[in-house]
Amino acid sequence: MSADFRLHDAALYPTWYRQPHPEPALLAKAVIGLPELHEKELEDARLIAVPGCFATAAILALAPAASSGMIASDVIVDAKSGVSGAGRSPGMGVHFSEVNESVHAYAIDGHRHLPEIVQELADGARVTFVPHLVPMTRGILATCYFDLKGSAAELQEAYREFYAHQPFTRVVDKTPATKLAAHSNLCLVNIAAQGTKAVVTSALDNLVKGASGQGVECFNIACGFDRTTALVGPVQWP
Amino acid sequence: MSADFRLHDAALYPTWYRQPHPEPALLAKAVIGLPELHEKELEDARLIAVPGCFATAAILALAPAASSGMIASDVIVDAKSGVSGAGRSPGMGVHFSEVNESVHAYAIDGHRHLPEIVQELADGARVTFVPHLVPMTRGILATCYFDLKGSAAELQEAYREFYAHQPFTRVVDKTPATKLAAHSNLCLVNIAAQGTKAVVTSALDNLVKGASGQGVECFNIACGFDRTTALVGPVQWP
Amino acid sequence: MSADFRLHDAALYPTWYRQPHPEPALLAKAVIGLPELHEKELEDARLIAVPGCFATAAILALAPAASSGMIASDVIVDAKSGVSGAGRSPGMGVHFSEVNESVHAYAIDGHRHLPEIVQELADGARVTFVPHLVPMTRGILATCYFDLKGSAAELQEAYREFYAHQPFTRVVDKTPATKLAAHSNLCLVNIAAQGTKAVVTSALDNLVKGASGQGVECFNIACGFDRTTALVGPVQWP
Amino acid sequence: MSADFRLHDAALYPTWYRQPHPEPALLAKAVIGLPELHEKELEDARLIAVPGCFATAAILALAPAASSGMIASDVIVDAKSGVSGAGRSPGMGVHFSEVNESVHAYAIDGHRHLPEIVQELADGARVTFVPHLVPMTRGILATCYFDLKGSAAELQEAYREFYAHQPFTRVVDKTPATKLAAHSNLCLVNIAAQGTKAVVTSALDNLVKGASGQGVECFNIACGFDRTTALVGPVQWP
Repeated sequence: MSADFRLHDAALYPTWYRQPHPEPALLAKAVIGLPELHEKELEDARLIAVPGCFATAAILALAPAASSGMIASDVIVDAKSGVSGAGRSPGMGVHFSEVNESVHAYAIDGHRHLPEIVQELADGARVTFVPHLVPMTRGILATCYFDLKGSAAELQEAYREFYAHQPFTRVVDKTPATKLAAHSNLCLVNIAAQGTKAVVTSALDNLVKGASGQGVECFNIACGFDRTTALVGPVQWP
Repeated sequence: MSADFRLHDAALYPTWYRQPHPEPALLAKAVIGLPELHEKELEDARLIAVPGCFATAAILALAPAASSGMIASDVIVDAKSGVSGAGRSPGMGVHFSEVNESVHAYAIDGHRHLPEIVQELADGARVTFVPHLVPMTRGILATCYFDLKGSAAELQEAYREFYAHQPFTRVVDKTPATKLAAHSNLCLVNIAAQGTKAVVTSALDNLVKGASGQGVECFNIACGFDRTTALVGPVQWP
Repeated sequence: MSADFRLHDAALYPTWYRQPHPEPALLAKAVIGLPELHEKELEDARLIAVPGCFATAAILALAPAASSGMIASDVIVDAKSGVSGAGRSPGMGVHFSEVNESVHAYAIDGHRHLPEIVQELADGARVTFVPHLVPMTRGILATCYFDLKGSAAELQEAYREFYAHQPFTRVVDKTPATKLAAHSNLCLVNIAAQGTKAVVTSALDNLVKGASGQGVECFNIACGFDRTTALVGPVQWP
Repeated sequence: MSADFRLHDAALYPTWYRQPHPEPALLAKAVIGLPELHEKELEDARLIAVPGCFATAAILALAPAASSGMIASDVIVDAKSGVSGAGRSPGMGVHFSEVNESVHAYAIDGHRHLPEIVQELADGARVTFVPHLVPMTRGILATCYFDLKGSAAELQEAYREFYAHQPFTRVVDKTPATKLAAHSNLCLVNIAAQGTKAVVTSALDNLVKGASGQGVECFNIACGFDRTTALVGPVQWP
């Protein structure tokens, strides 16, 4: 669940984590714990690096477009996260009175989840990623912008096909509210466009699909259990 | 304060407001009520069209870059608004239990504030604008992305110069939280970059600088009063 | 789940529901759907009236004290509810911008859940009940005050015994936060005192133990299923 | 603004503040900084002890009833506070993710504002005071319960007379929402009854009338300024 093995390239660790990786030989053995992209490899995996919450949201929003070659420009990922994404340690940055009734951007000069996103999008598109803190406990919304090669309908079709057999990632017709995924292992993805600019939004619960839920999902696959074991409960709204 | 005279071009009304403008001759007389850009014209104005809340935030975030020719690509405006921006009429879209603990994008295919933004950015850059609803009462944050012509330091300098004598719009060193502008007529603007991508964020209170506060500001100018009359009260945090 | 059969005494309906009860003969057959008090009767029940959310919280906070004769005065129930308790219909009273960042009392002259509380507390204590609206989606906290006959330790013991074998209602050592019961069928009860005044707080999720969750619990009992069927999922915090 | 001189009786300090008062002789010179009760004494005061936020809300809700002898029983004060009442120091108790979407009682065995309340209510009624933490930044609502000597109409009249000439404390017809007093120095008081039980609710902003605003108000009086100096700004909703 930590960042220890999320980047395949040992050279990236000094830049993003301020120290060389102590076990670079293990990096090649680590499988990225994103079942939508790596289910087969996860079946035999013994070292699984579950991606960060932002990275999961962004990659699931972009992977079908990238793999089908429909991204015709650089990519903007504008992400909005609930406060639990900042961890449980007290601090002014998570003080209720400071955070409530407010939204702000942070880490504009580069957030550690950015290289994870770039690594998984094989097509090498330039990605700009800016996270924002939103006054809610759970949830991430990633709004992704890129110039579209092809039509919006073709893009939608690419996503529907890519996720057709996925138990947790679903293409939805309306822009998803994070609350629809709260307390579940779901990731909801909507594909839209404004002129020739594609706007893909993905919503998930940063503490479930963005963290331990996805961890359990990978564990299920690696152990040969049904992938949804222990991950489905009564659906509740609101 | 309404949208009646916000667009100079009568031909845009059928597209964005689903009807022809009933008084197109008056459109040429309307001054856009954005004092940072049009203070001189406002002095003699009798017909003032105060821009929408999103438009105000986006234009103040982009105007110095546009007017100094430092925008080298199309522009993305990813805006986050509090719920009061949706008005006071009850509805499921503003029901506490639906909106609380959630964030979502809306109007991806085109929001009415978009042509106002394009109109004020003289350089004709293509703009993509997507608003989001955030669980807070007041506040707008506009995160604007574009490729930078020149350095980030030059961009900052352009903004500092542009807003040097403005009483309400301030260039700030840290990405602004909307709460810092809440209950005030301030607009706070931060200039940053991620590589060669400029990331400019602006924060304001949609009910003050984004609405009636700016209206009073324009009224003050048109009537020859001090521009800050009735707009400054005790500062309060949080 | 409705209020149709919650009061045994037909004479109360005109007062609290502004009309005579159309089927008074059925009232005698209705079992109050509160398993902690009526499990045996629920086993044979075919007409079950699940109590209101406030009534459930107040009765579970007071029943052990009432049944052990430890209430030496009238009782105050000061209840705090999340906004989902007001239902899903839009209206100014549930508009995010009106409700957020605010708390207020309502229905001071008498809320319909009051006669349900009185009915279940066999000892005939006078009850004052005032509900409050709190800016959160889910949850009820009932703070109950009464002069104590006996010691606080004896009172605690009475509660521990009363709820010793209950799967969902638990006596806890610290004053419960509603969030600890959110998205679950739990009711958490704390017994404390300020001098000789007992202060009992109960917390539950108004949409689960205060509504459909308790409905399912009663259904399970009436159908001979395990009482917790479909009511237990992964525990999540926060 | 601190608690140093809020209690007249030096003997209370070891109990409530765990140490003897170091300057007991000064206690007799301190004037309680509650202008609604002590305006005359404040005119000559040089040592002013502004009461705690909860104490201000409770005393303003109870003083007219106490001074007119209309309290016929002990008194319950069930108070609800926003998170800023807990101060600005970070900690788990003010962590957004812990506090949001939740309400709980605390300090049931005795909060330090209790002896301040008792001290100001000259009639010696027994008071039970329990504070609650509510997920909002600002605001206190005090719901006060007592058996009524006389009618509700007489009680209302006593309050209207008591506060007739007060600039900041107002008797209102509906139960006040804390938001109506937010960012202002107002205290709004509503008088109602449930049968013979009086239910008085008071609402104020804990950071203004419950703290520095009231401090400025006292300062104005002591310095011979108009009492409302620097305390009135543009009214804003929501």
